[in-house]
Amino acid sequence: MSAGSGAAAVGPRRVPVRLAQPYEVLIGSGLLAEVAPSVSENEVAVITDANVGPLHAAKLAASLSASGKRVEVFTVPPGEASKDAAVWLDLTRSLARAGFSRGAAVLALGGGVVGDLAGFVAASYLRGVALYQLPTSLLAMVDSSVGGKTGLDLPEGKNLLGAIWQPRAVFADVSVLATLPVREFRQGTVELVKHGYLADPELIELFEGGWGPEVGGAALAEAVARSVAVKAAVVAADERETAGARATLNLGHTLGHALEAATGHALTHGDAVGYGLVYAALLGRRRGFEDLLPGFLRLLTWLAPGALPDLGFEDLSPFLQRDKKRSAGAVRFVLLERIGKPVVVGDVSRQEQESAWRELREVVG
Amino acid sequence: MSAGSGAAAVGPRRVPVRLAQPYEVLIGSGLLAEVAPSVSENEVAVITDANVGPLHAAKLAASLSASGKRVEVFTVPPGEASKDAAVWLDLTRSLARAGFSRGAAVLALGGGVVGDLAGFVAASYLRGVALYQLPTSLLAMVDSSVGGKTGLDLPEGKNLLGAIWQPRAVFADVSVLATLPVREFRQGTVELVKHGYLADPELIELFEGGWGPEVGGAALAEAVARSVAVKAAVVAADERETAGARATLNLGHTLGHALEAATGHALTHGDAVGYGLVYAALLGRRRGFEDLLPGFLRLLTWLAPGALPDLGFEDLSPFLQRDKKRSAGAVRFVLLERIGKPVVVGDVSRQEQESAWRELREVVG
Repeated sequence: MSAGSGAAAVGPRRVPVRLAQPYEVLIGSGLLAEVAPSVSENEVAVITDANVGPLHAAKLAASLSASGKRVEVFTVPPGEASKDAAVWLDLTRSLARAGFSRGAAVLALGGGVVGDLAGFVAASYLRGVALYQLPTSLLAMVDSSVGGKTGLDLPEGKNLLGAIWQPRAVFADVSVLATLPVREFRQGTVELVKHGYLADPELIELFEGGWGPEVGGAALAEAVARSVAVKAAVVAADERETAGARATLNLGHTLGHALEAATGHALTHGDAVGYGLVYAALLGRRRGFEDLLPGFLRLLTWLAPGALPDLGFEDLSPFLQRDKKRSAGAVRFVLLERIGKPVVVGDVSRQEQESAWRELREVVG
Repeated sequence: MSAGSGAAAVGPRRVPVRLAQPYEVLIGSGLLAEVAPSVSENEVAVITDANVGPLHAAKLAASLSASGKRVEVFTVPPGEASKDAAVWLDLTRSLARAGFSRGAAVLALGGGVVGDLAGFVAASYLRGVALYQLPTSLLAMVDSSVGGKTGLDLPEGKNLLGAIWQPRAVFADVSVLATLPVREFRQGTVELVKHGYLADPELIELFEGGWGPEVGGAALAEAVARSVAVKAAVVAADERETAGARATLNLGHTLGHALEAATGHALTHGDAVGYGLVYAALLGRRRGFEDLLPGFLRLLTWLAPGALPDLGFEDLSPFLQRDKKRSAGAVRFVLLERIGKPVVVGDVSRQEQESAWRELREVVG
């Protein structure tokens, strides 16, 4: 299959998210040029960051203006520090001063940080206005832009504020990934591979031996669409993370979050989850589940993550316990009985956790 | 019918709010003592203000603790100034530091300000936790505690931030109204009478000749329950104020909001809406609708509002136009063709508005 403009000519892939208010995730090359006609609102606030804005905002704003809409672009500093109540307050006050009405739309143009921040602006301004997600990183395309989670960090922890606020549509323009640093691209593939292990073995095969943005638009769109389809199905089954289904998306994340916290986020999310996937494979193998270690180790080799923190289990354990508070129960791990068969396991003993941690240090050391 | 403890003995009145997640508004005397067994969550944050807290929080917290729950009480300064992003941020950070989980509940114990503020805390903490409204003012009982509107003010305007976040239940304990200043009680009756005119003529009759907290628990509960039933029906038909039905609750509010804004909120909400109801009657009479002026004038006489601001129409008009931005259309007024038959009218000309304003100044002057 050939890539790029050929894929755009046959129209974007469309993945439905079947919620009470259904919406579609569109995936294709050159999609940003097709956003304007799909936005029905006449007042549009584009929220972006100082990395992405210079690359894509002017063209987007021009096409929105050309279709007769009033457009304003708001640019925040790049990076996690912008998921902050002060930045959110500045944005909402800017919208108010600009006179945006309840009939306005917020377009989140950027990676996960912009999506979470702009999403919460849309959720809270005038008690909620229309939101469109325009993810520009692979991670945001396959994960954070789908499902309606929005959030801000507090000094007390990440994502402690926010709302579930579904977008009207998501436009994943894979052609913008050409400008994404390879390192960030790889970070995104971790969640993509995770979705394959959760529900789509063919998606995993696309990644045997590694992968990069050079595979081209059509292959990228195929992989992103398959990954989004997995996430969309889980979200449709459990929008507010109350039924358990959505918890399976946390495969690799229990250890991942602990590693991020233990390193003060020096280890990136993708790297931490990469280690978390191997850890889940080790826990699963000990329980007699299918041995998925080889596949996750291949992913890790190709990901080339930052070094595993040199922590004894007693130092790591408090960070594993932290997730406990949020779920009002024992430490939960998502494991895989086999590819496509995740289980949420609530009874992983301290000893199992410790043994698997030692084993992880050996296999990746 | 006799009042007080007799009414409580026969159990509270229950008004259902028929949304996707239905809930009940319970109305009765002594209800605060019955809250604890109805709260299923084991971690409870009571949010109240420095006026209401000293009267009711300790007893409520004790009964929650006695049923085995972990309880913390957070007290904010009384008054509109607490509907502020900084106060909201302080509260959410306090909840985080105290380790409240997604299984926690927020109990809003107070008037409209506490309900709006604590409601937004519940809507946004960990992307949403359970909320119970425990309104302690008549206005909050009949209006703001029902329907899920939560909000914060910005320097740019009131209620510009917020969410629609429905409570799990509302407990309107009319016995607490005994501690409410008569002036505040009267403010609440304005919305109550408004609900009567919108949909329940018998409710209006309860108010012919005025009314006060001295009528006793049973009569109060009857009136509050009837009023809540009107609001609940409208909310069930139009949860997010998109279909037009919920807009009818703005009867009297288009002029009311303009008067509040024009006086920098020196005129209270109830007083302003009282004048707004008379103004709506004057506009309706000019269109040949039923003449409802006598009834609204009686309400106004008994309400004894602050003086109507001495403004020419050219001074008032910009504040009437301000609502326009929010609805992306012409200035809308809710009028009554007759009692029980509200209509949203979008074509009230500047000349009609001006003539009715002159007339209002004459009839109340």
